[in-house]
Amino acid sequence: MNLHNLICCVVSLAAYATALDNGLARTPPMGWLSWQRFRCNTDCVNDPLNCISERLYRDMADRLAADGYRDAGYVYVNIDDCWAALQRDPETMRLQADPKRFPNGIKALADYVHSKGLKLGIYGDMGTFTCGGYPGSKFFMELDAQTFAEWGIDSLKLDGCYSTTDDFTIAYPIMEFYLNKTGRPILYSCSWPAYQDSPDYPRIAEYCNIWRNYGDIDDSWDAVKDIINFYGADKGNFSAVAGPGNFNDPDMIIIGNKGLSPSEEEVQMALWSIMASPLLLSNDLRNVSERSRNLILNKGAIEINQDPLGIQGKRVWQANSIQIWLKPVLPQGSYAIAILNDDDGGYLTTVTVSLADLGVTGNAQYYLNEVYSGLYLGAFNTQEKAVFKVDVSSVFFGKFKKIG
Amino acid sequence: MNLHNLICCVVSLAAYATALDNGLARTPPMGWLSWQRFRCNTDCVNDPLNCISERLYRDMADRLAADGYRDAGYVYVNIDDCWAALQRDPETMRLQADPKRFPNGIKALADYVHSKGLKLGIYGDMGTFTCGGYPGSKFFMELDAQTFAEWGIDSLKLDGCYSTTDDFTIAYPIMEFYLNKTGRPILYSCSWPAYQDSPDYPRIAEYCNIWRNYGDIDDSWDAVKDIINFYGADKGNFSAVAGPGNFNDPDMIIIGNKGLSPSEEEVQMALWSIMASPLLLSNDLRNVSERSRNLILNKGAIEINQDPLGIQGKRVWQANSIQIWLKPVLPQGSYAIAILNDDDGGYLTTVTVSLADLGVTGNAQYYLNEVYSGLYLGAFNTQEKAVFKVDVSSVFFGKFKKIG
Repeated sequence: MNLHNLICCVVSLAAYATALDNGLARTPPMGWLSWQRFRCNTDCVNDPLNCISERLYRDMADRLAADGYRDAGYVYVNIDDCWAALQRDPETMRLQADPKRFPNGIKALADYVHSKGLKLGIYGDMGTFTCGGYPGSKFFMELDAQTFAEWGIDSLKLDGCYSTTDDFTIAYPIMEFYLNKTGRPILYSCSWPAYQDSPDYPRIAEYCNIWRNYGDIDDSWDAVKDIINFYGADKGNFSAVAGPGNFNDPDMIIIGNKGLSPSEEEVQMALWSIMASPLLLSNDLRNVSERSRNLILNKGAIEINQDPLGIQGKRVWQANSIQIWLKPVLPQGSYAIAILNDDDGGYLTTVTVSLADLGVTGNAQYYLNEVYSGLYLGAFNTQEKAVFKVDVSSVFFGKFKKIG
Repeated sequence: MNLHNLICCVVSLAAYATALDNGLARTPPMGWLSWQRFRCNTDCVNDPLNCISERLYRDMADRLAADGYRDAGYVYVNIDDCWAALQRDPETMRLQADPKRFPNGIKALADYVHSKGLKLGIYGDMGTFTCGGYPGSKFFMELDAQTFAEWGIDSLKLDGCYSTTDDFTIAYPIMEFYLNKTGRPILYSCSWPAYQDSPDYPRIAEYCNIWRNYGDIDDSWDAVKDIINFYGADKGNFSAVAGPGNFNDPDMIIIGNKGLSPSEEEVQMALWSIMASPLLLSNDLRNVSERSRNLILNKGAIEINQDPLGIQGKRVWQANSIQIWLKPVLPQGSYAIAILNDDDGGYLTTVTVSLADLGVTGNAQYYLNEVYSGLYLGAFNTQEKAVFKVDVSSVFFGKFKKIG
């Protein structure tokens, strides 16, 4: 198929597509993704436990299944960049895994992951090369989609390196077309808006289940704060596009790594839950503290993240170092609330606020519980002010449950 | 005494003084200081537990004594800014504590602190006002020194707000003169170089036991890294001035607060030990995790910090995100080593290095132990390379002990 034909396909496709409906991501996807923690470490000679290899993904699948993550909803094991051989198979032009690091190939890894009750995700790029310099899908969309489906892949992250943003609005839908054509349900994660200044979010949501729209997260509080502030600004109102089947992706969960304090880890879990974000862990599950694991598995937080309404929470108030976020959740009329104090100095701040102050109207009554502990804090109507003490680098994470 | 007389005193003093020798700070002072964690919180009505008050310092003295800190060497309880009444006593012109927040006055607090086997430090300013706007000592040097001594004060931090750097070289020595004159040993902490571009460190060391030379620490990894890099650059070779009686002060220990991850807390403890820094905790000792407390009390780290040679360690190697520090310690010819990885991304780095690579000559043998755990890692001569795996936001902290 040549490029002219491809464009024909897109044009005809555009006539039919109104929204992506592959049945996936009805709530934000949950799982594990290698990039933040393991990057493009391909040195299996000197660092066999931490290089991008079959062993790494098998280890993570083992831990997801054995340590309670799978049963809490973290089911995707996602390969990121640097898994492939530097050349396609010269006979078939198919992508192939690096033969030394993935001696049994991706299909065998998928079988193993499936045997654990998990799903396998893979990484590609819509340009000529991946960001790490491995083969891209630009001229092989149909073949790569078929290959992934035959391997038993359940999720594809398609990056946007070695391309131009002009190509994006064509290329991302083309891959979606071929993924659908395989007949295998493959969750589709796009990097489409991350490379654009003013992304057309409604159009992106027609083709992608989730999409990155900001820079890569690093293992630091600065990175977490940057992302929170990008999502708080909500430029172009991208929060409005989120819903069952489609979610903005602020990038990976770094809880259990080296860069966040205990209370900063609570901030990421609360905010990613409020933002209806995919919960894709990127840590070394073989070395996560009990405290961090309990946070990742916190039932109250996951319930808010996985709320069936799929509404992305918004920042509704901000002054000095304090910002307040609200996310409508079930039962209808209820709200999750996060009050973040991102100050680096000083002491805890007292925040006195009512739901009415945050734009919630009506005369309903609410029970307020702290999410992580479940602690009941009292009954409030929309006018009654509650007093929150929020320490520096910390969050209050609560739920106003509407009564009756 | 008028200003003319004061200048006479300094001139005559200068003829005698060659080095401050009040017998204090033979090793870096250890204790607790309120500023980073409690700042200028004077709201005892709404925040009685956390405001600058008699109660706060009594609470901290209790914890220092009861929780093992005092017995490990943390003996100073240091008041910082905002303790004073806004006006001097109109009859005597003496400084006075805020009567609501310190109902029994500073002397009673000193008595209480002394009864616990601890020492009390206080804060003043060599300018017209303190940084927080309370009365400064500019025209009351002798009176304030007398007052502090009569109260039973054991340490004075003299800040430099509301002044000019021209005054510093006169005013700091004058206060030292009057402190000595009281006959009470009062550890003298100056902010003298912190306000100057090219401080005259040898001169500062003639008058001060410790001195701040960089901005205030905040409760963040960024702040810790900034300070480490300032000390690593060692502009003007200020490390050379450190020794028994005199130490550079990179500001407070924030371990046990909200802004550092567990491994970042290990970095601060290791580097402050290597730098022969005062160990002045600024946290809420009533709410420090067991993990953080164990780190603050780590015997191996404190031994390196308190090494009788009093030599300030130096950064001897740096590339990308890795920096290596060495501090000569006893037994003679031995070294403490810190290998820091301050990367925010990626994975652990392998560092392969010998003592000879770091400038240590000769043919001696060394035993290498990890400091925090005490783990023995082997015997090495100066030429043999050791392999260290250092994770992001983490440190390897070791001691090469010279054999025989």
